Amino acid sequence: MIIRPQLHWFRMLLAWRGSVLPELLPRLCLILLISLVALGVHDHILKITVNVSTTPFSLIGIALAIFLGFRNSASYDRYWEARKLWGRLLNETRSLTRQVLTMPTGQIAADDTQAFVHALGAFAHALRHQLRGTDPSHDLSTRLDPAVFERVMASRYRPATIMLWLAEWVQRHARDGKLDAWSMQAIDRNLNGMSDVLGGCERILSTPLPFAYSVMIHRTVYFFCAALPFGLVESVGAFAPLFSVFVAYTFMALDAIASQIEEPFGTDDNDLALDALSGFIEDAARDLLAQPQLKKVELKDGYLLT
Amino acid sequence: MIIRPQLHWFRMLLAWRGSVLPELLPRLCLILLISLVALGVHDHILKITVNVSTTPFSLIGIALAIFLGFRNSASYDRYWEARKLWGRLLNETRSLTRQVLTMPTGQIAADDTQAFVHALGAFAHALRHQLRGTDPSHDLSTRLDPAVFERVMASRYRPATIMLWLAEWVQRHARDGKLDAWSMQAIDRNLNGMSDVLGGCERILSTPLPFAYSVMIHRTVYFFCAALPFGLVESVGAFAPLFSVFVAYTFMALDAIASQIEEPFGTDDNDLALDALSGFIEDAARDLLAQPQLKKVELKDGYLLT
Amino acid sequence: MIIRPQLHWFRMLLAWRGSVLPELLPRLCLILLISLVALGVHDHILKITVNVSTTPFSLIGIALAIFLGFRNSASYDRYWEARKLWGRLLNETRSLTRQVLTMPTGQIAADDTQAFVHALGAFAHALRHQLRGTDPSHDLSTRLDPAVFERVMASRYRPATIMLWLAEWVQRHARDGKLDAWSMQAIDRNLNGMSDVLGGCERILSTPLPFAYSVMIHRTVYFFCAALPFGLVESVGAFAPLFSVFVAYTFMALDAIASQIEEPFGTDDNDLALDALSGFIEDAARDLLAQPQLKKVELKDGYLLT
Amino acid sequence: MIIRPQLHWFRMLLAWRGSVLPELLPRLCLILLISLVALGVHDHILKITVNVSTTPFSLIGIALAIFLGFRNSASYDRYWEARKLWGRLLNETRSLTRQVLTMPTGQIAADDTQAFVHALGAFAHALRHQLRGTDPSHDLSTRLDPAVFERVMASRYRPATIMLWLAEWVQRHARDGKLDAWSMQAIDRNLNGMSDVLGGCERILSTPLPFAYSVMIHRTVYFFCAALPFGLVESVGAFAPLFSVFVAYTFMALDAIASQIEEPFGTDDNDLALDALSGFIEDAARDLLAQPQLKKVELKDGYLLT
Amino acid sequence: MIIRPQLHWFRMLLAWRGSVLPELLPRLCLILLISLVALGVHDHILKITVNVSTTPFSLIGIALAIFLGFRNSASYDRYWEARKLWGRLLNETRSLTRQVLTMPTGQIAADDTQAFVHALGAFAHALRHQLRGTDPSHDLSTRLDPAVFERVMASRYRPATIMLWLAEWVQRHARDGKLDAWSMQAIDRNLNGMSDVLGGCERILSTPLPFAYSVMIHRTVYFFCAALPFGLVESVGAFAPLFSVFVAYTFMALDAIASQIEEPFGTDDNDLALDALSGFIEDAARDLLAQPQLKKVELKDGYLLT
Repeated sequence: MIIRPQLHWFRMLLAWRGSVLPELLPRLCLILLISLVALGVHDHILKITVNVSTTPFSLIGIALAIFLGFRNSASYDRYWEARKLWGRLLNETRSLTRQVLTMPTGQIAADDTQAFVHALGAFAHALRHQLRGTDPSHDLSTRLDPAVFERVMASRYRPATIMLWLAEWVQRHARDGKLDAWSMQAIDRNLNGMSDVLGGCERILSTPLPFAYSVMIHRTVYFFCAALPFGLVESVGAFAPLFSVFVAYTFMALDAIASQIEEPFGTDDNDLALDALSGFIEDAARDLLAQPQLKKVELKDGYLLT
Repeated sequence: MIIRPQLHWFRMLLAWRGSVLPELLPRLCLILLISLVALGVHDHILKITVNVSTTPFSLIGIALAIFLGFRNSASYDRYWEARKLWGRLLNETRSLTRQVLTMPTGQIAADDTQAFVHALGAFAHALRHQLRGTDPSHDLSTRLDPAVFERVMASRYRPATIMLWLAEWVQRHARDGKLDAWSMQAIDRNLNGMSDVLGGCERILSTPLPFAYSVMIHRTVYFFCAALPFGLVESVGAFAPLFSVFVAYTFMALDAIASQIEEPFGTDDNDLALDALSGFIEDAARDLLAQPQLKKVELKDGYLLT
Repeated sequence: MIIRPQLHWFRMLLAWRGSVLPELLPRLCLILLISLVALGVHDHILKITVNVSTTPFSLIGIALAIFLGFRNSASYDRYWEARKLWGRLLNETRSLTRQVLTMPTGQIAADDTQAFVHALGAFAHALRHQLRGTDPSHDLSTRLDPAVFERVMASRYRPATIMLWLAEWVQRHARDGKLDAWSMQAIDRNLNGMSDVLGGCERILSTPLPFAYSVMIHRTVYFFCAALPFGLVESVGAFAPLFSVFVAYTFMALDAIASQIEEPFGTDDNDLALDALSGFIEDAARDLLAQPQLKKVELKDGYLLT
Repeated sequence: MIIRPQLHWFRMLLAWRGSVLPELLPRLCLILLISLVALGVHDHILKITVNVSTTPFSLIGIALAIFLGFRNSASYDRYWEARKLWGRLLNETRSLTRQVLTMPTGQIAADDTQAFVHALGAFAHALRHQLRGTDPSHDLSTRLDPAVFERVMASRYRPATIMLWLAEWVQRHARDGKLDAWSMQAIDRNLNGMSDVLGGCERILSTPLPFAYSVMIHRTVYFFCAALPFGLVESVGAFAPLFSVFVAYTFMALDAIASQIEEPFGTDDNDLALDALSGFIEDAARDLLAQPQLKKVELKDGYLLT
Repeated sequence: MIIRPQLHWFRMLLAWRGSVLPELLPRLCLILLISLVALGVHDHILKITVNVSTTPFSLIGIALAIFLGFRNSASYDRYWEARKLWGRLLNETRSLTRQVLTMPTGQIAADDTQAFVHALGAFAHALRHQLRGTDPSHDLSTRLDPAVFERVMASRYRPATIMLWLAEWVQRHARDGKLDAWSMQAIDRNLNGMSDVLGGCERILSTPLPFAYSVMIHRTVYFFCAALPFGLVESVGAFAPLFSVFVAYTFMALDAIASQIEEPFGTDDNDLALDALSGFIEDAARDLLAQPQLKKVELKDGYLLT
């Protein structure tokens, strides 16, 4: 995710990174070419045979508005729901940390409590790696006991296995008499919450927007943009290339932004900053243990990557 | 459900499967025919008597935008709610598995725990069969004890009967003193969650969009598309067939996609992949028991059917 | 509610029942008449004095789109929320049945349990009768004990009184020591859920869309439709009656459908099938007791009324 | 709130009360005047110097549609959320009444239970008075014990103080051993629910739509309506006054309705009927005690004010 | 936040503060200048070479409507969710205060209860300071014990540390036998609620709308507004400057308002009044202790800043 907070309104007009312009440039050049062709044949060929008014474009515009408006909302909902799930993970992590620190009726060894809290951090990292299909072994090995680490790496759904271990930790101390049944249930409720986060992320990852939508939106946008110069050349003449390229840019950009954020767990410029988020969650838990921060978030090229 | 992740933007323009084009082809040919007729009579008949401008089309367009926009959102909401319910089933299944593994205060036989977890898997399969109206006997017989299987098959709402058996399992162990009252309630809460999933799916299945909407949307779309060539022939002349067919395609496709996903439990290209989902839910529960996967999800013709 | 599943796309164009066409026919004839008048005076009077272009219609169209789009969504939300509430009633009924069957620590007489479950069915019927303002005595007398029946009929809010009796049932068995405090609370939570369903339905019934909306939408739609022929006669000439009637049909139908579903508890073609729903809820509870179905849902004239 | 259920579609066109027409009449007369001026100067002045086409109006129309559509939804959401909160208050009131009637393990004096239930009714009235800034002393003095009444009137947030007293009632009986810890918690959950209702209503009351929206919507609507006659006079000539006034009416009415319902606790025609609602909530609680209704809701001038 | 309740509709047209006009004035002057240039070259240059019709503007208008409509809703959702979170903080604060006052089974020293309630107030202030990046030491030092204050100031996430202290307070009294396990859990649930509020606010603060949207909306709005005069000069002639500036004002204002409220924790005119809100939350808790109000909310220049 790219954040440049409080950019001046004029400088924002010139933004390059994160503006999907780099990605669209080749296609816009194509539109420009088509416009010039349209302009060229206008006086010599087009006018004689038939005039293409802008009427059909406003009719396609209805479908386009429905398609793009819908896709835009649906993609953003996916993005924002994903962000909410990670936010909820932070809340559950903090709540669980608070609970294991204040609920035990007997004394639990500081080491043991730390192992629990570090496993919470490991959960966030394991979830990130599962969602991005990357290798979690480095991040997990430094946060889990070797035996737990082996067991987690051997399982198919690693975050779920970490959660099972957390529940076993609770059971162990419940049998020791250090956690009463009440506390066990309170913790169980928050573990259910982590389960919801895990399942919610898996749902967003495994179920994209129905394929037919993507196809139709693409077709409508590109047909519209390719035919547009022939319509505009009649009504705005020599300005047709300028307007064609600009209109094409706005529609293609809508399509491209939505396509980036509809899979919010990727590594595109506008995707969620899972690295920073999992670090932040871990840090929030460590702060309650009065432990120092592991890694600072840094600026890159003046952009804050959160 | 058809998934072709990260298709190049250009190749997506040419997608055939899952694009509803095969279904619409005959109707689009009809529109093409009407366009050619409109073009033919234009100079000889139409112009003399009366000109059909595109004005009324933009007025119908308002109604069309409301109808299609609404239907599109409502259908997608049904689709996404159905997906969320199945996602929640995964969460409840995982939570229940975790609970029966870590909550008992005394030792429960591994076989007995397995029977519980396998019944959770059976629930997912039974729900899928109920929603699709298919025969669950094969899938249930391999996952349930013969006695339970008989009883489930004899009932009218099979997933609910499986759930009743799960609750009886809990009661049995509560009376044995292996589960305390706290744990019984925690499990009961998650069983309520499964009840919500079951009821939610039944609701979506049994209550389609009000019939009047489907009728009106059909009528508006098809009247619009059939009359369109006569309007376009005036303003774009020989290009009328091209534009008529394209505009008709976009509107009919919107109608067709929405009509596919509004019944998300079917077996259309864009429906939910209940086979894969129920397999996935079962696999997630088995993973917590450290049992191997039953069946792998495979690619078909380069398409990932999840 | 009228359901004709999987109607062929062409036959749907000709649907009569449930399409609000019967209701609108007289008004559409009026629009036809106005169109013919507009066509008649066009050449002789209108052209000389002043031409009515379609410009103002597209401006009214903006307001119309906002009004109808909003009303449509708001009405459907009411309809769908009402359906969700009834769906939730099913879930709570099933959960409560499961709970009274599996939670008691001591044996409760089968008759007593049945009385509880039948009262759950009575709740659904009592709610239906309250929402439709019909007489519940027949349905309640067959499902409740005579003493309970008397008390329920004497109260002003019958479903609430049934719920109070359910809570007393729980209290009686809690005092007998057959239900522990935990179970009492678990049941209490689901009774709260039934309370939410009851209150939610009463809310939808007693608070329609603000009156001012209905008035404004009516005025805008009917003024628009009545003035439309004079605008269209200029641009499409002899086709004005055809287009006027069709455009009027789409807008009036939007208004009429929304007005049907915004009061979802009525008996219009597109309202909720409360008869079938309350029967279904009762049947789901009886199935868990392994009791046979009371009444089958039947087809009428080829229409499935669910 | 004005309700005239099942008004004939034709008579609804003529509705006066509740239609915001009375409020808008002076402004519409102003628009009529402007139209006549525009019509007067049209042939003599306007045509010579410059023609004002309707083009800019459709561009302003885009902004207008976004502004009014947004404001309309946002205002209705506030209205409907407020209604939901009051509906939830009914549910919590009924649940709490059921709980104090069926949960005690020992006998609580009927008087004492009544005091609790009457205080629930007092809560609804106190909330209404706080939201409307009116004097609650009459309604509270008849429902609360004198000592409690004194204490409530002395506090700054009266409903919250009543709720504190309810919690003290529970504590008193818990210490007497008549309510066990379980019941205390169940009741506490519903008291939390009342807390949510109270806070939710205060939120809606204290945070209107951002001021900038109201300003912008006003400016856009009134500039649009004042300039419209000059645009319409060109395209519809002598009909300009008719259309100008009608279009102005629809936009101003949208603005006026939204402005009424965005503060749903007021006493405008389309605001929530808090009098009736608080009476209804109280009545529902009294019904469970088998007490008679305090006050009937009546018709006024043929309008049902609920 | 600026509130001027019940401003007369005419005076609202002239509002200056809070109307984003001051901020936009320089840019509107630029648009005016461009309009005058367009008007100047119109007869001499533009007409000869090429005419720029308003056609392309209505096509850009489609994209603009999608972008601005989406951004507007998304920003308002962020604003309203932030307000809901603060409203929920009020509810949790009140509930926690009620709980510590009425749940203890033994007597807790009034001082000790006060320390708890004052820490709740400190939480609200600490959250505000964290969200605005301001120094909390003054507000916290007056509400927390010196030892707690030191510890809170030393931590990275101060509100979370205060919450940990609240949980320790509960644990201390639970070990003393003054709070039973039930009450501890009830309080824990509400502490979880505060955790959700904290995490929710951090989420809104740390994740703005995807950067690409802001860039695209800016580009589309400013290109549209800069090109508009050349389109309008053709159709409305000398009125072009008037309409250009007004249309530009509406679109730029939509952009500017959304940009203010999308970061609701700032100090812009239309941001949330966190000062007043945290004071209000504290006051509501103090009222339940029958303590006087700390600070009155005051009017400034006739504006109510809540």
